[in-house]
Amino acid sequence: MKQHPPPGVYWPVLSDAAVPLVSEVLVTDEMGRQKAIHIPGERPLTVYVDKQELVTLMTLGGAPEALVLGYLKNQRFVHQLDEVVSIQVDWEVGAASVKTRDGIASLKARQEKRTVTTGCGQGTIFGDILSDLDAIRLDADARLDQQTLVAIVESVRQHKSIYKQAGSVHGCAVFRGAEMLMFVEDVGRHNAVDAIAGRMWLEGLSGEDLVFYTTGRLTSEMVIKGAQMGIPFLLSRSGVTQMGLEMAQKVDLTLFGRCSGEHFLLYSGAHRFLARHHMNQGAVES
Amino acid sequence: MKQHPPPGVYWPVLSDAAVPLVSEVLVTDEMGRQKAIHIPGERPLTVYVDKQELVTLMTLGGAPEALVLGYLKNQRFVHQLDEVVSIQVDWEVGAASVKTRDGIASLKARQEKRTVTTGCGQGTIFGDILSDLDAIRLDADARLDQQTLVAIVESVRQHKSIYKQAGSVHGCAVFRGAEMLMFVEDVGRHNAVDAIAGRMWLEGLSGEDLVFYTTGRLTSEMVIKGAQMGIPFLLSRSGVTQMGLEMAQKVDLTLFGRCSGEHFLLYSGAHRFLARHHMNQGAVES
Repeated sequence: MKQHPPPGVYWPVLSDAAVPLVSEVLVTDEMGRQKAIHIPGERPLTVYVDKQELVTLMTLGGAPEALVLGYLKNQRFVHQLDEVVSIQVDWEVGAASVKTRDGIASLKARQEKRTVTTGCGQGTIFGDILSDLDAIRLDADARLDQQTLVAIVESVRQHKSIYKQAGSVHGCAVFRGAEMLMFVEDVGRHNAVDAIAGRMWLEGLSGEDLVFYTTGRLTSEMVIKGAQMGIPFLLSRSGVTQMGLEMAQKVDLTLFGRCSGEHFLLYSGAHRFLARHHMNQGAVES
Repeated sequence: MKQHPPPGVYWPVLSDAAVPLVSEVLVTDEMGRQKAIHIPGERPLTVYVDKQELVTLMTLGGAPEALVLGYLKNQRFVHQLDEVVSIQVDWEVGAASVKTRDGIASLKARQEKRTVTTGCGQGTIFGDILSDLDAIRLDADARLDQQTLVAIVESVRQHKSIYKQAGSVHGCAVFRGAEMLMFVEDVGRHNAVDAIAGRMWLEGLSGEDLVFYTTGRLTSEMVIKGAQMGIPFLLSRSGVTQMGLEMAQKVDLTLFGRCSGEHFLLYSGAHRFLARHHMNQGAVES
């Protein structure tokens, strides 16, 4: 974590465990030509909470501290940032050591009920999270206009990324208007969104005026994680599943899929979107 | 499961729980046009083994019995097909009820050690599986020629699929030569490969003369699952991660990525591949 805490804000003690994100390998193409290409890293990172093994995440390794923090938050092991004293990542042993203030009471009980979700598609506990969705209120007054949406998609396209260099990773980004506030890539799309959630938490960002972008498919768990961050807009280069759409409708999330260049599809929450043709009509009518 | 057991082969009692795989939704595009499109289903399927809750899989629902069987096999909860007495899927309650012959002794202990893997990227237990890789011997004498490889890619392209209709799913297929033996799609790429593993097990197929195709990225766990099926060839439309490649090299798997039309990249196990230029050279020299 290269960032520093905003003044007056509590931060856990975090390591800054950098690691090479791509490596060069020799491959042979269909013409028999040898060439060197880049492929993304993938590393096991075993999370220990107060010396008890919790889980092993397979990650690119670009933002391990934020990933661990966001994982603990999204899995609802921790609820307040100051419950976390420190996160120390050591790539030598592939371990992230988390120290909490008071321990995590529910650790044992929680591990006994696993829910494997769609992402991979076999993921994380989220049975309980579903019931929490009722409590989520996304800002009904937030607005996103079409010009900003297209600018966001273009901004992601132009962003220097592991994806462009090596492929085979998913990216997530958070925008305020057309300004990119953060961008995280990982070999798994859930890791990328967890790392974003971790960074948002550290920076004290609430989501109500933000836009969340992901390259990944919008399965139920992705939509839920977006909604949990309080972000009313979710954009994806990919499409949505039926349950992803149902979740979006349930929490009144404004959901765009198939975002590419000027193109997109608006699936839900149209009341927050200022379409260009409406904008033009407005201009003509006024 | 519409298939019937080969004569003389043990099969568990399996339900045949069909469910609609796509649904139609109304969306709005960038020109403000409303249109109806298809999106894939995503359903929770909670697996109970001998009435004990094991896991909830989020799935498209196309092959639930094979998925559950393959999941149990790939997670190494069961080792012989006749350990499984029956798998009954009931979509009304989103449950798959598995009855085993003698119970699964390791169930409780196994659940306490979770490994969340890259796929989503937060998946399944596989710590122990890594150590098993040493035991895998893939057929060193198997061969795949370039013409067959291109025919396989073309066959997948032409196959009628949920992906073509609705997008947002991953597909897996198994080929013998250029003949497609099975094809499974799911919202998660791990579910698709688990369902393939389940079907292969039911049909008594061993992998040594087969080719495995997936649309998904080749992270470590995908490569491991391919190797566990005993299939020496793994093809993907996508790329590979560093650890995926390391796993392939470790078990001497022949790995192709970026397969599209005539294009591909050969990452490992070149000794099994008969390249066209070599084939031509052979023809010229003889």
